[in-house]
Amino acid sequence: MHQKSLENYLNSQKELINKHLELYLSELVSSCELEGLKGKGIQEPAKILFDSMKYSVIGGGKRLRPILALAGTEFVNGDIKNTIPTACAIELIHTQSLIHDDLPCIDNDDFRRGQPSNHKVFGEPMALLAGDALLAYAFHLITTKTPKEVSPRIILKVMEEISGSNGFIGICIGQAADIQYTAHQNLNEDILQYIHINKTGALIKSAIKTGVLLGNGTKKQLSVLTAYASYIGLAFQIIDDILDVTGQKSKIGKSIGKDKHLCKATYPAIYGIEESKRKAETYIDMAINLLKNFGKEADILRALAKYIINRQL
Amino acid sequence: MHQKSLENYLNSQKELINKHLELYLSELVSSCELEGLKGKGIQEPAKILFDSMKYSVIGGGKRLRPILALAGTEFVNGDIKNTIPTACAIELIHTQSLIHDDLPCIDNDDFRRGQPSNHKVFGEPMALLAGDALLAYAFHLITTKTPKEVSPRIILKVMEEISGSNGFIGICIGQAADIQYTAHQNLNEDILQYIHINKTGALIKSAIKTGVLLGNGTKKQLSVLTAYASYIGLAFQIIDDILDVTGQKSKIGKSIGKDKHLCKATYPAIYGIEESKRKAETYIDMAINLLKNFGKEADILRALAKYIINRQL
Repeated sequence: MHQKSLENYLNSQKELINKHLELYLSELVSSCELEGLKGKGIQEPAKILFDSMKYSVIGGGKRLRPILALAGTEFVNGDIKNTIPTACAIELIHTQSLIHDDLPCIDNDDFRRGQPSNHKVFGEPMALLAGDALLAYAFHLITTKTPKEVSPRIILKVMEEISGSNGFIGICIGQAADIQYTAHQNLNEDILQYIHINKTGALIKSAIKTGVLLGNGTKKQLSVLTAYASYIGLAFQIIDDILDVTGQKSKIGKSIGKDKHLCKATYPAIYGIEESKRKAETYIDMAINLLKNFGKEADILRALAKYIINRQL
Repeated sequence: MHQKSLENYLNSQKELINKHLELYLSELVSSCELEGLKGKGIQEPAKILFDSMKYSVIGGGKRLRPILALAGTEFVNGDIKNTIPTACAIELIHTQSLIHDDLPCIDNDDFRRGQPSNHKVFGEPMALLAGDALLAYAFHLITTKTPKEVSPRIILKVMEEISGSNGFIGICIGQAADIQYTAHQNLNEDILQYIHINKTGALIKSAIKTGVLLGNGTKKQLSVLTAYASYIGLAFQIIDDILDVTGQKSKIGKSIGKDKHLCKATYPAIYGIEESKRKAETYIDMAINLLKNFGKEADILRALAKYIINRQL
């Protein structure tokens, strides 16, 4: 796939996701207003909660996870219409994890996606609640917005995947391990992988898997793409670690050099930049290699794998 | 219903819920260990996350919300076996809201259910993550543990109810409004009701409603019990506010006088203790009155309403 057509593809998928995220968030606001203080001349007391949720969701982001969910459905020749609510839900979950990560008690990060982080704008209590509400709304979207054509059993499978230790709880597990192993003496690659597989890999894997499930993919397709997602998830986090050392804040949209400052467990901290890059490339090669028995239907997945390794490097 | 038999009923339901909460939490731990660092001689890095989750869930509590869910199912003559996972999920959600409420950036409370609050034991980052993981695990339980006899469509309805602004998002909305109206000049009963209906009422209502749904109740039964739940939810919160003024820490298990100290929007702050009690009694009378056309099957609900007004007063 040409660079230009990948860019077009990414932009059009991103636009599709953004349009639906805006729609879903505005629906949440209007549904709550009806049950609020309407007609009593009092401004909705919880408006600030919705503003805080919107601020972080609409504020930017590559929308990589939802794009991977849609790509999973496309790969198995399913209808992406059925995947859009879940793809958006996954982006809400990702956003909640960023908002909570940035809080002073965890990473204490002032910038995210090129703008002040949520708690810098809305204060810590509202950032905390916005994250909580986004997580719940993600599950609400999946249950209420998935088109009727999708069987309720599939929807329950999607919920199971995203809510468990393969999905969101995986993020919490990775984050807890990350905190445990910050500035730790006995760091090794096993632990580093454990952190990355959970903290970043879990939701990337869930995105692709739910895309396949919603597209009615076969067990074989599901297992190939699950392995593919594991590799690109690892590569993605290694690149993220590298960019924290070598990147520019203006391009990445968040603070640079934070990992080293916080003594975080990262690939560059153990292996240095060059060896880390090599490892990321190996994972991407392994991901692409898994697709060797597939034809044109895997072009997007191959291009996405290359995109992950090349972004901003 | 006699006081003694209500006590027996409450104790046996509480035991049933506690037994399942322990079971479900231990299953989460063992499912994650399998995917962790097993056989590599490294202690599960995320064990502290599970310990933190367990600490707040197993630590105590009246289990009022799950008991109400079971009572909803019993009222419509359903099988409570089908409701247990949802009832436990609602308790996990309630626990997450307590953990996050107690954090320094919100209520900064050092005690809960008679023991140090979660962040006092595990630190703020882990308390934050434990709350996040409990919320996700609640949804995971509903999707994975509800018996096969329950149709997937009913499970999706239950998920919809609990995840939306009627359920967990309602708690966030109430909490956001509470924060907005702490130490506010223009507090009035409309706003106070709005806060209480959302912050406390939403999950109490969801508990009973999902109990009715899982018991295959009729629309009529659902609408009566929804109204009943709204009244007991309001009464419950008024009593909670009163106990914050008049209660003993040893009995209530949390800090006393905190509301006044934080200038919270409460009934006693607006109406004083006596008038607040009267209001709570009126709501309980209204709840019981809704049940007047029902016979013995509503005995437990009548007794539960009276229990709410009489607890610790």
